[in-house]
Amino acid sequence: MAFEMPHPAGTLVAIGGAEDKTRNRAILRFVAERVGPGPLVVLTAASAEPDAAWRLYRKAFRNLGVRSLQHVDVRDRRQAFHERISRAIDGARGVFFTGGDQARIASNVADTPVCERVGALLARGGVVAGTSAGACVMSDNMLVSGDGHGAPAGAVQMGRGLGFVSDVVIDMHFSQRGRMGRLLAAIARHPGTLGIGIDEDTAIAVAGDTAEVIGSGAAWFVDGARASASNNARAAEPHALSIEDLRLDVLGAGRRYDLADRRPVVDRRRERRGRAA
Amino acid sequence: MAFEMPHPAGTLVAIGGAEDKTRNRAILRFVAERVGPGPLVVLTAASAEPDAAWRLYRKAFRNLGVRSLQHVDVRDRRQAFHERISRAIDGARGVFFTGGDQARIASNVADTPVCERVGALLARGGVVAGTSAGACVMSDNMLVSGDGHGAPAGAVQMGRGLGFVSDVVIDMHFSQRGRMGRLLAAIARHPGTLGIGIDEDTAIAVAGDTAEVIGSGAAWFVDGARASASNNARAAEPHALSIEDLRLDVLGAGRRYDLADRRPVVDRRRERRGRAA
Repeated sequence: MAFEMPHPAGTLVAIGGAEDKTRNRAILRFVAERVGPGPLVVLTAASAEPDAAWRLYRKAFRNLGVRSLQHVDVRDRRQAFHERISRAIDGARGVFFTGGDQARIASNVADTPVCERVGALLARGGVVAGTSAGACVMSDNMLVSGDGHGAPAGAVQMGRGLGFVSDVVIDMHFSQRGRMGRLLAAIARHPGTLGIGIDEDTAIAVAGDTAEVIGSGAAWFVDGARASASNNARAAEPHALSIEDLRLDVLGAGRRYDLADRRPVVDRRRERRGRAA
Repeated sequence: MAFEMPHPAGTLVAIGGAEDKTRNRAILRFVAERVGPGPLVVLTAASAEPDAAWRLYRKAFRNLGVRSLQHVDVRDRRQAFHERISRAIDGARGVFFTGGDQARIASNVADTPVCERVGALLARGGVVAGTSAGACVMSDNMLVSGDGHGAPAGAVQMGRGLGFVSDVVIDMHFSQRGRMGRLLAAIARHPGTLGIGIDEDTAIAVAGDTAEVIGSGAAWFVDGARASASNNARAAEPHALSIEDLRLDVLGAGRRYDLADRRPVVDRRRERRGRAA
């Protein structure tokens, strides 16, 4: 680990985007249950239309029983130093990062009091959730952009995220936008990294070293610990990277993954059922 | 192996579709060089518009120096028993399966004299190439349809292919259509299978147990030998399959994969360069 994870007590919820807001609402319900009555801060730093994002999530979380909701927006880095915003986060039981542009969150929030207060919220047992760009930004190394449809290539852009979880790169809208190629390119750029691709309407809830999958899709865990990446230096034209010996685990709802061991957690009940059958 | 591979001498070229036909033409050039002057049979059994497909590939291969080209079409299963068609394949140095609908090729060609004569051509050292549906159909178990954008699910449709390569499932347009989910679903359906996803303008050339990658994209080798797949029986709603412990190797142009060992072939020249650097 690059540094000790700052969430011994809290829960980090990384959502792959497009989570259901009106029907089953498995993911937002999970967040709402852990936040209880609130306060829940909706942080719209990633959004191009912060007021619309706030109204959308205010309604969704109110319908799920969160009584106290607060809108915090950070349009520029200067605002992230406002005492008022730090106080709002200090008083909250949860923070929800809306989607949009992960580079915008990172440049305005990384290494500011807002980032530090969110880390402290996690450390004292709070809930930090984010969807789409808001999920992407949670890791230390962050995917900024890259071709979503293609073989792994050198063209992927990386940046520094907020660092709530380390040795990990998170990508979202994963199956829906065919992003395995760019996740592998990110792993090639940062050897040893664990790549986590999260489908739409799917989330991982990280508590300690365990990530549990929630929602209708899958979370894709790509372990690059043993992987080696190479270019074909003899090729005359632009070409795909080669990346060898990755371990892939794809987990649906209810399954858990150990981020330290980089293996799915064995489900004892499932094991017993399998033996009995 | 389910049965002995029938190509001790020949080369099977499985192309992921949309191969370049006018510029670098790395893949079609590879086929043309191995076919030499010909004859090359263009088999349009998969195509909805067989004459257009024939004209397209006739022009492309003529420009690459193949002098003798012949069009063979199979519109219904009865035609696959015509003596004239078997003779054309018996006299050829190569056969090229055009793209279209893999279920159409399989239902009209599997277990017919056409299929048997193509197998014999491979056995005597010929070239059997196919693009898109024409690549898909080369394995014994074949992907017929399934959601190209999504987590692995039970909804994938499988069928019997022509069986030129066994213990393998091939999918095409792989990165471009985000098909990892459906390839994993196929592996879950046929445990132990090697899944091979081939990008557009990319091919694998299989000679003996070795597959070499050609073209601008990557070939994705997903080894399901140790994998276990499971449903979440407790889930209330439709959900993703979980598939654990897959090995993934993604190889670009010039790299080779051993289909028997299910490992990339170590490139000694690359190894030496790596150590010297």
